[in-house]
Amino acid sequence: MDGLNMSRRIRRTPYTDRVEQIGVQGFSVVNHMLLPKAFKTSVEEDYWHLREHVQIWDVSCERQVQIEGPDAAELLQWMTPRDISNAKVGDCLYVPIIDANAGLINDPVMLKLSNNKFWLSIADSDVLLYAMGLALGRGLDVEVSEPDVSPLAVQGPKTEDLLAGLFGEHIRDIGFFKFGWIEFENTHQLIARSGYSRQGGFEIYLSGGHLGSALWDAVWSAGQTFNIAPGCPNLIERIEGGLFSYGNEMTRENNPLELGLVKFCSVDGSIDYIGRKALQEIAKQGVTREIRGITFDGDPCPTCSVPWPVTVGGIEIGKITSAIWSPRLKCNVGQAIIDRRFWDAGQQVTVHCRDQDMRRGIVRKFPIEID
Amino acid sequence: MDGLNMSRRIRRTPYTDRVEQIGVQGFSVVNHMLLPKAFKTSVEEDYWHLREHVQIWDVSCERQVQIEGPDAAELLQWMTPRDISNAKVGDCLYVPIIDANAGLINDPVMLKLSNNKFWLSIADSDVLLYAMGLALGRGLDVEVSEPDVSPLAVQGPKTEDLLAGLFGEHIRDIGFFKFGWIEFENTHQLIARSGYSRQGGFEIYLSGGHLGSALWDAVWSAGQTFNIAPGCPNLIERIEGGLFSYGNEMTRENNPLELGLVKFCSVDGSIDYIGRKALQEIAKQGVTREIRGITFDGDPCPTCSVPWPVTVGGIEIGKITSAIWSPRLKCNVGQAIIDRRFWDAGQQVTVHCRDQDMRRGIVRKFPIEID
Repeated sequence: MDGLNMSRRIRRTPYTDRVEQIGVQGFSVVNHMLLPKAFKTSVEEDYWHLREHVQIWDVSCERQVQIEGPDAAELLQWMTPRDISNAKVGDCLYVPIIDANAGLINDPVMLKLSNNKFWLSIADSDVLLYAMGLALGRGLDVEVSEPDVSPLAVQGPKTEDLLAGLFGEHIRDIGFFKFGWIEFENTHQLIARSGYSRQGGFEIYLSGGHLGSALWDAVWSAGQTFNIAPGCPNLIERIEGGLFSYGNEMTRENNPLELGLVKFCSVDGSIDYIGRKALQEIAKQGVTREIRGITFDGDPCPTCSVPWPVTVGGIEIGKITSAIWSPRLKCNVGQAIIDRRFWDAGQQVTVHCRDQDMRRGIVRKFPIEID
Repeated sequence: MDGLNMSRRIRRTPYTDRVEQIGVQGFSVVNHMLLPKAFKTSVEEDYWHLREHVQIWDVSCERQVQIEGPDAAELLQWMTPRDISNAKVGDCLYVPIIDANAGLINDPVMLKLSNNKFWLSIADSDVLLYAMGLALGRGLDVEVSEPDVSPLAVQGPKTEDLLAGLFGEHIRDIGFFKFGWIEFENTHQLIARSGYSRQGGFEIYLSGGHLGSALWDAVWSAGQTFNIAPGCPNLIERIEGGLFSYGNEMTRENNPLELGLVKFCSVDGSIDYIGRKALQEIAKQGVTREIRGITFDGDPCPTCSVPWPVTVGGIEIGKITSAIWSPRLKCNVGQAIIDRRFWDAGQQVTVHCRDQDMRRGIVRKFPIEID
């Protein structure tokens, strides 16, 4: 693990002081901001803990792009192939954003705050600049801004009990990918049933960075009886669970259909958006490759920092984009884009982790399980 | 120094293999890509070496945003307050990019490749998405793309002799902020007299990432007689020299005039661009704060990862955004935005590095020198 040089440009979050106090061991950088990626425990210990207990994650790097104004809904619909016309206030919608060639620019969650005010909770690319460019170019009546909002995720099966005790029983009524409100230090704060794990949980979209340490402390303190631990998106859990990462599994080289996002894409011509013609053509032809799980043998694999070729009979039929050892399945697990002829579950493949480091692998469905 | 977790999302460069072989100790992340930030020598040793010899820097993270097509020049002029109408093929122009409120979005170098093909060599924000949004919104006939181009900087007073020997005497005729061409492995490669230091040098905009190791090796080998070393933008040298960093000294909270970029801003109404009205109003009123150098006493200061208040008589009159110990001036040096009433060289101030860590400081002009 190589060092990360700090500067103002790589922004600290409202929780960084607490994260450092509790012994963070490593960071990543997302949206020009620190994302804690390791604590004193191993990724394997964190994995088991996340599946059983509750964790507190600093995911402030999920920046909010606020789009507000009379033309806000028009701009958002232009940006995504997902039909957002039926979205209600209080909904969280996963909205792929694509370019004119249907290449993925980002895959945020859209929060509808009112009929003319939305947040895009973004992955790692400057959607703010893209939205601003579109609005300026088209002369739309919107304001595009980044509000002082920093999500704190609480994830794991004990989350609901913890947060209900802390903020009130009403949070139990918030549905999956819906948001409600809690009171904290005399402020209203948005809370959504969402998060970057398959273990259940909520994300508190803290407005007002000065409240960061207080919110962290409140959750941490209430979490003591639930065996709370600091954590972060867990690579083992997200790979097994089929949660994809923008920049890893998808870039502008990928369209949303090959990421299996067909249910978030309107291709019947009923709505218009950037990239519609390209996406309709891809839908008509059928995708030639699609994302799949993979398991492969051998020792725990190295870090996947460049795509690894996947071959059958010496011919490349796909690429692994994320991989790690699973202590539960007792093999390596990965996510890979696989050519159509080889994407059926059970297909045997060869994984090329590095030159000369070849492993026997098997294509799997998500969530990855071994029968 | 905290660890950096690697993944495909934080892109390796064509030179990362070589940089690792030579013992890189730390990275930063710029434009979703690795920027080496430390080798086996200290930043102070690197500083002295850079002023005397020659260094090879992997600055691939200076990504190129290619804008090509009949409307390319129109789009670029719309994006910057600098009048680019007189730019010639072969020119490198420093072009601040501002939003509708005159807030800085980026401060790239524009390379004019032909009358309808330009590169923007960008600092750390997704100008590609912004340009794409503007073009889509306005319906401009341009293609916006990121070509496979990865700058390798060679910096320091011995650079010209090294590169003239390697690529030909004709490179000596390339003027400051101009570019020419060299031959390498049967390819034409762009070379500019530019770079993020005040010690002279060139940047080779390598087209074709597969040639990365070969180019590194060729420069490294030819550099042996010039005492070449691996390096990176040197914090001491850039602070003293008055080279600013997007994300550190400037964000969307800053306009180009308070960064002293008045000569790159047309405010007489002769050209139109995004943010013109806001910038004209600021120019008319006069800026209320402007960037300055600062020297301050005490032990070598900590890393400046949040802006540090600068006070006079207990009143905040500015913020330091980058700072480090200068072994040459034998004091700490910094860059700060300072209020008008206090920005004259010689003004005595107090620097608040952290709670309770106050230092006596003096406002300075750039380049920072002590009489």
